[in-house]
Amino acid sequence: MECLARLPGVGAKTSERFAYHLLRAPEAEALDLAHAIRAARERTKVCSECCNLDEVDPCAICADPARDRGLLLVVEDPRDIASFEGAGHRGLYHVLQGRVSSVEGIAPEDLTVAALVARVRRTQPREVCLATNPDLEGEGTAQWIGARLRELGVTVTRLARGMPAGANIHQVSTSILADAMAGRRPLP
Amino acid sequence: MECLARLPGVGAKTSERFAYHLLRAPEAEALDLAHAIRAARERTKVCSECCNLDEVDPCAICADPARDRGLLLVVEDPRDIASFEGAGHRGLYHVLQGRVSSVEGIAPEDLTVAALVARVRRTQPREVCLATNPDLEGEGTAQWIGARLRELGVTVTRLARGMPAGANIHQVSTSILADAMAGRRPLP
Repeated sequence: MECLARLPGVGAKTSERFAYHLLRAPEAEALDLAHAIRAARERTKVCSECCNLDEVDPCAICADPARDRGLLLVVEDPRDIASFEGAGHRGLYHVLQGRVSSVEGIAPEDLTVAALVARVRRTQPREVCLATNPDLEGEGTAQWIGARLRELGVTVTRLARGMPAGANIHQVSTSILADAMAGRRPLP
Repeated sequence: MECLARLPGVGAKTSERFAYHLLRAPEAEALDLAHAIRAARERTKVCSECCNLDEVDPCAICADPARDRGLLLVVEDPRDIASFEGAGHRGLYHVLQGRVSSVEGIAPEDLTVAALVARVRRTQPREVCLATNPDLEGEGTAQWIGARLRELGVTVTRLARGMPAGANIHQVSTSILADAMAGRRPLP
């Protein structure tokens, strides 16, 4: 129960429910979970190129010759990669493994920025898009990294901010509308 | 009850509750509502310049000499104006009074597009921003109007689409991420 209660969002009650389930379920089910946890930890590697998590190094994306090597999307978290893959990104990634946060005590040095700078210097991509989240900490992280990358002469971009597709003007916040007005573009 | 049940979102049960409330409340409260409805209908005018609703014609915004007359924001609905005022728009507006919708049987001729075209020809603004909603019908409406306005040689723009401020990459839809990637901009 103590171990289970350390999972995110799991408290005393839920860990108790999990523990009794694991005791009463068929033995194979419980041992499968134990095995999967051990195997996942043993097999998962950090890609030495992009800092993504995978079972191989370099990761499957970095190793794929069909990807556009000129466009790097810099994301906070390995989970963001699945989102951008679904949205059709065909370039490469760089995983920061977090974001600068004074609240959580995360400094720029705790992220993989040094690896990113070394990689940009070595591979000379035509564009680095900083795809951190559109909030205060994500924006601050993007500004900090952008300042370092610009010294290398690479084009640095940011994801578009504006109206979310499918939204209604009545329902979105003032800051979303302000972004949408500031970023207005020629009608295609 | 029949009259009250025609209000949007009010069904049989709610209209019954409203009706009994109006019968049992102090007489002044009931008569105030009756009077306010009548007064609002009698006094509200459609602005002959921008088709907004107001008690004066031209409306308070069109009559304000401090507004930037070179920038027209074209909105679907008078209620959108309050949103954009809150977000800091200091130009003028044009209210379409709806959107092209095959489902609801609304054709371009049912909107105030002819008045918009005449106004643009007459006042020659430097930019018309089509601020219809970022969904299928709003997009279609913008394309239809944009084609007519471009013949007049005016710059036609659209609100930015992208990540809503404060959102999280894990939680937004694929189409929002695709917009955010397509519209990415130089880091400011």
